[in-house]
Amino acid sequence: MFDLGVVYRNIQRADGDTATRLGALGSATVHEAMGRVGLLKPYMRPIYSGAQVGGTAVTVLLQPGDNWMLHVAAEQIQPGDVVVAAVTTDSTDGFFGDLLATSFKARGARALIIDGGVRDVRVLAEMNFPVWSKAISSKGTVKATLGSVNVPVVCAGALVTPGDVVVADDDGVVVVPAALAPTVLETALAREANETAKRAKLASGVLGLDMYNMREPLRQAGLRYID
Amino acid sequence: MFDLGVVYRNIQRADGDTATRLGALGSATVHEAMGRVGLLKPYMRPIYSGAQVGGTAVTVLLQPGDNWMLHVAAEQIQPGDVVVAAVTTDSTDGFFGDLLATSFKARGARALIIDGGVRDVRVLAEMNFPVWSKAISSKGTVKATLGSVNVPVVCAGALVTPGDVVVADDDGVVVVPAALAPTVLETALAREANETAKRAKLASGVLGLDMYNMREPLRQAGLRYID
Amino acid sequence: MFDLGVVYRNIQRADGDTATRLGALGSATVHEAMGRVGLLKPYMRPIYSGAQVGGTAVTVLLQPGDNWMLHVAAEQIQPGDVVVAAVTTDSTDGFFGDLLATSFKARGARALIIDGGVRDVRVLAEMNFPVWSKAISSKGTVKATLGSVNVPVVCAGALVTPGDVVVADDDGVVVVPAALAPTVLETALAREANETAKRAKLASGVLGLDMYNMREPLRQAGLRYID
Amino acid sequence: MFDLGVVYRNIQRADGDTATRLGALGSATVHEAMGRVGLLKPYMRPIYSGAQVGGTAVTVLLQPGDNWMLHVAAEQIQPGDVVVAAVTTDSTDGFFGDLLATSFKARGARALIIDGGVRDVRVLAEMNFPVWSKAISSKGTVKATLGSVNVPVVCAGALVTPGDVVVADDDGVVVVPAALAPTVLETALAREANETAKRAKLASGVLGLDMYNMREPLRQAGLRYID
Amino acid sequence: MFDLGVVYRNIQRADGDTATRLGALGSATVHEAMGRVGLLKPYMRPIYSGAQVGGTAVTVLLQPGDNWMLHVAAEQIQPGDVVVAAVTTDSTDGFFGDLLATSFKARGARALIIDGGVRDVRVLAEMNFPVWSKAISSKGTVKATLGSVNVPVVCAGALVTPGDVVVADDDGVVVVPAALAPTVLETALAREANETAKRAKLASGVLGLDMYNMREPLRQAGLRYID
Amino acid sequence: MFDLGVVYRNIQRADGDTATRLGALGSATVHEAMGRVGLLKPYMRPIYSGAQVGGTAVTVLLQPGDNWMLHVAAEQIQPGDVVVAAVTTDSTDGFFGDLLATSFKARGARALIIDGGVRDVRVLAEMNFPVWSKAISSKGTVKATLGSVNVPVVCAGALVTPGDVVVADDDGVVVVPAALAPTVLETALAREANETAKRAKLASGVLGLDMYNMREPLRQAGLRYID
Repeated sequence: MFDLGVVYRNIQRADGDTATRLGALGSATVHEAMGRVGLLKPYMRPIYSGAQVGGTAVTVLLQPGDNWMLHVAAEQIQPGDVVVAAVTTDSTDGFFGDLLATSFKARGARALIIDGGVRDVRVLAEMNFPVWSKAISSKGTVKATLGSVNVPVVCAGALVTPGDVVVADDDGVVVVPAALAPTVLETALAREANETAKRAKLASGVLGLDMYNMREPLRQAGLRYID
Repeated sequence: MFDLGVVYRNIQRADGDTATRLGALGSATVHEAMGRVGLLKPYMRPIYSGAQVGGTAVTVLLQPGDNWMLHVAAEQIQPGDVVVAAVTTDSTDGFFGDLLATSFKARGARALIIDGGVRDVRVLAEMNFPVWSKAISSKGTVKATLGSVNVPVVCAGALVTPGDVVVADDDGVVVVPAALAPTVLETALAREANETAKRAKLASGVLGLDMYNMREPLRQAGLRYID
Repeated sequence: MFDLGVVYRNIQRADGDTATRLGALGSATVHEAMGRVGLLKPYMRPIYSGAQVGGTAVTVLLQPGDNWMLHVAAEQIQPGDVVVAAVTTDSTDGFFGDLLATSFKARGARALIIDGGVRDVRVLAEMNFPVWSKAISSKGTVKATLGSVNVPVVCAGALVTPGDVVVADDDGVVVVPAALAPTVLETALAREANETAKRAKLASGVLGLDMYNMREPLRQAGLRYID
Repeated sequence: MFDLGVVYRNIQRADGDTATRLGALGSATVHEAMGRVGLLKPYMRPIYSGAQVGGTAVTVLLQPGDNWMLHVAAEQIQPGDVVVAAVTTDSTDGFFGDLLATSFKARGARALIIDGGVRDVRVLAEMNFPVWSKAISSKGTVKATLGSVNVPVVCAGALVTPGDVVVADDDGVVVVPAALAPTVLETALAREANETAKRAKLASGVLGLDMYNMREPLRQAGLRYID
Repeated sequence: MFDLGVVYRNIQRADGDTATRLGALGSATVHEAMGRVGLLKPYMRPIYSGAQVGGTAVTVLLQPGDNWMLHVAAEQIQPGDVVVAAVTTDSTDGFFGDLLATSFKARGARALIIDGGVRDVRVLAEMNFPVWSKAISSKGTVKATLGSVNVPVVCAGALVTPGDVVVADDDGVVVVPAALAPTVLETALAREANETAKRAKLASGVLGLDMYNMREPLRQAGLRYID
Repeated sequence: MFDLGVVYRNIQRADGDTATRLGALGSATVHEAMGRVGLLKPYMRPIYSGAQVGGTAVTVLLQPGDNWMLHVAAEQIQPGDVVVAAVTTDSTDGFFGDLLATSFKARGARALIIDGGVRDVRVLAEMNFPVWSKAISSKGTVKATLGSVNVPVVCAGALVTPGDVVVADDDGVVVVPAALAPTVLETALAREANETAKRAKLASGVLGLDMYNMREPLRQAGLRYID
């Protein structure tokens, strides 16, 4: 009835270079450039710190306690992709480990974003294959029930369409619809450029109150100072 | 950049009669007929028990601690609608109370589904205006920042497109894409018809093991009985 | 060192009549009249629905898994009081049951607000003794370690000073500092009066957009309508 | 390797009359008589209030998102049993609904205790078949992977061995090992008898401080009264 | 009505040297010296490990999804201060990032304690500006609604009055009322001195049972050894 | 009544060498070899990354906010043991710190697994004494109420019997019943050997779909590819 048991082989990926450049800007800057939408819930955390990626989404819909579709997804990965896995129900099971990571890496995947659990995290760190997940768990899974690959999924509260740009770093994970990627990149670059000057001013002791001209709006909103 | 600050006035609603009939079947039956997808997370609970509705979705995207867009949404409600409200971040604030409920009801809304908090719950029960929410909270909200009305939203982990059918009862809330509503209704009705006979058999003492012919598959899967 | 092992016998209670009248207005109205502060976290829920109280706070600081100080607090209760119990660490144990409720009721207490667990909830409902708590649990407690009575406590995220007004209903629990109680009552009554007229207007089909003159501010904030 | 894929047909049930009488005493009294152990975590809540049962445990170990073994368990139910279902991982899926309840009831089961989700809750209430669960959810399950029946399970943090007495009411769920059931019953009855006299005293205004002779131990522990 | 929209410019800070010395002792030792009170809830975690600070509190009350008052607070910071930010409702939004950190650091702040989210955590670590927070999140905030600066706040369950000493390290965050700081320091130093000798004894194989003379009290409490 | 206030001095430990070798295989491999059971809930996390241990369980049952029995347990530790501590109710208090760790280490303990909180985590890391816990917290505990040592306990959802093998690493904690340890070791070693070859194949670009012969079962389950 619904899109279960389906693999879409031809998806429209956002431009790879745009994805890479958005990745370099980081999730906070990109999220602001999006107008403060598109963020996955903050329970999604990297399994090791310091990783920062941008890539195009290959999506997977998993069934609880079942990682069959991750094997199906591996074949659909192209270099520069980030795999985004949702589960049809809340689960912290360890759907993904070092064997699948070896395969994903061999296919050119840059990262996994999974609204579930992951295991073999020490080996994954040694392999330098970053994962953002809801949990870390040794709990293994079966291969018994179909999900789908490359259908739109809701992952950690955000809609991800195959081919979207995914940006992830220590601050979290943000999704940029493929059609908006060029404009978001432009806005984000402008924002970034703007921040360097601000940082220098603030470091010199200038207050945000003055730099952003907040004193008058605060007064009008009714702020009172009491000595 | 993204769809913030926008109100779509013309949305394609699913057929109202189909929505009503899906509502009468209940969320569990409809969810099964969908192939076990489309369910909002189970933290969404009715503020009083016994309510059961089916209607067409008017969607709202709220900012945290801000209920401005619920007032904007009221104008877009047509009789038979169910308002579905998402928030750009996790929030349990009381975005909705008896005044807004009075307005929604006057416009013909059947229910509110909100991924946030609600208040005046005793009055809402007396008014017979059902709400499914994440929380109950007296916490009031401001009217300062724009969201949107009738854009696709992710509410409690499920994608809701304006005009979709929403079915809610004591078991939870399920969303049926407008295009699939007729087929889902047909499947659900068949399933329902099927259940009455099964119930009678089970009540008479027939085991599911025999009624569903599970003994052989269980044996093949390796089930052992030990006396 | 800190205020542990101490019982303050003389506390300055807010006016009892003011407390009762604030109780009748309910937590949402009082919380708004306070400027949207003073609310306990929404995980505090009544053990049965429909109760609504206002009273003056007798405070208790409990140790985890230990209800000794509730017995000490009973002696400090005066008619019209509401006992507010905090715990020095997160706990869901059942600190309070029907025996203590019998004693509290005999002393004139109107309710218990406890950032922990409670048990015998069916009997408490039969006794008509309302409790707002974080949990319901059969888990019993010991009587081994001192806490305090009538010291300022943080209960479910809100500061409660002995003698403060506590208002609780199905929407939650709000605390009004004793010194502010008369002014908050005045503001809340004005707000309440105002709402009746609004409710009638909204019921007649007038939109909040027009009744609150929101159209122009929304336009200025950039809201766009798309047909 | 471990006890998966196994059904034990002959279990040693605690005496049925003892189980029934423990049920009548309630979870709080029984838990105290046990020395304050044996309690399931307080997130286990009844799907409707007012139910109170005692029975002998038939245990089930389920796989996530899979209710196959509940059908297997139905055949092992004898009149007076309470089915206790654990899951090998955290899950809120709706493993159980009105069809299984019809079957369980036909076999003589008194209740279901499940560390997972349940659905059709309105029908279950109408059937008067009580369930204590972690969640309510429309989410359906598959029948694909084996668990076990009548092996020791950990349900909501408590070890339950087949044949143990299970007592459940609005306060929670407690497990009494079969071998201890007679002694626990005796202790619980003594405790119960004792409480009636205490309740009358407290209702007359006697303080627990005096009735339990707490003043001297409190003084020795260092309690100070400040006027 | 309540203290919203207010900035107190003159606060009574605890002695800076005392604050620094308490910081060096660490949160566990200081918490014990306080009599086991004053601790923020353990969900408050450092964004990088190894930081340890003591300082005087500048407090901020924020509105959900709004970081306006952090800019107002920056002006009130003096060298040696620790900023403590509470929010009027639960929020995980990223209220604070590298720009504000640059400003806070330029003013002499030693750390931020925030009952909400923070972002740019990699840059913050590089800047060596420690933050203890409830969450890490890219989610940006607006500047639309007033809160307050230097009013008493409840942060993560603890009351913090402006000028109090705040001690934070890998174990958590503890607050010492300014008036108690000298006595707490004395007690903590005595405790610390005491621990070195104990550690040596335990390392040599002496049991706590003997070092603390626990055998007799355990026997009196009824402990039984079974071979 | 139940096993409270009891210390079992003679427990049957699993073979130490087997425990050590299981530890070297890691929790994910051992959990798989167990048939995917025996895992503690994934909220149990190491206080520092990189530790990996296998040892024999000495169990402790603690009361909330009370660490008395950890001192009692210290005497029962033998070289190669791992202490497993459960609490009779949910608690995040800091039951364990550097002094107890010094004592445990002097006795030969390899690690602590505790379904509660721990403190002095920086010192514990410097001492190289690994702990897996539910929380980190400065909150101290008292020594007032008896629990037990070396009774079967439920720790983080898993039954642990004294003498069982406990395996813990960055992925989590798994328990192997002493009687099964040799067979589990054998199965785990076979699995491990098998993985090396698989890893090489996957790294060379072979897909799991082909290596595991999944294409036909997927086709039979109904998987459709759409171009």
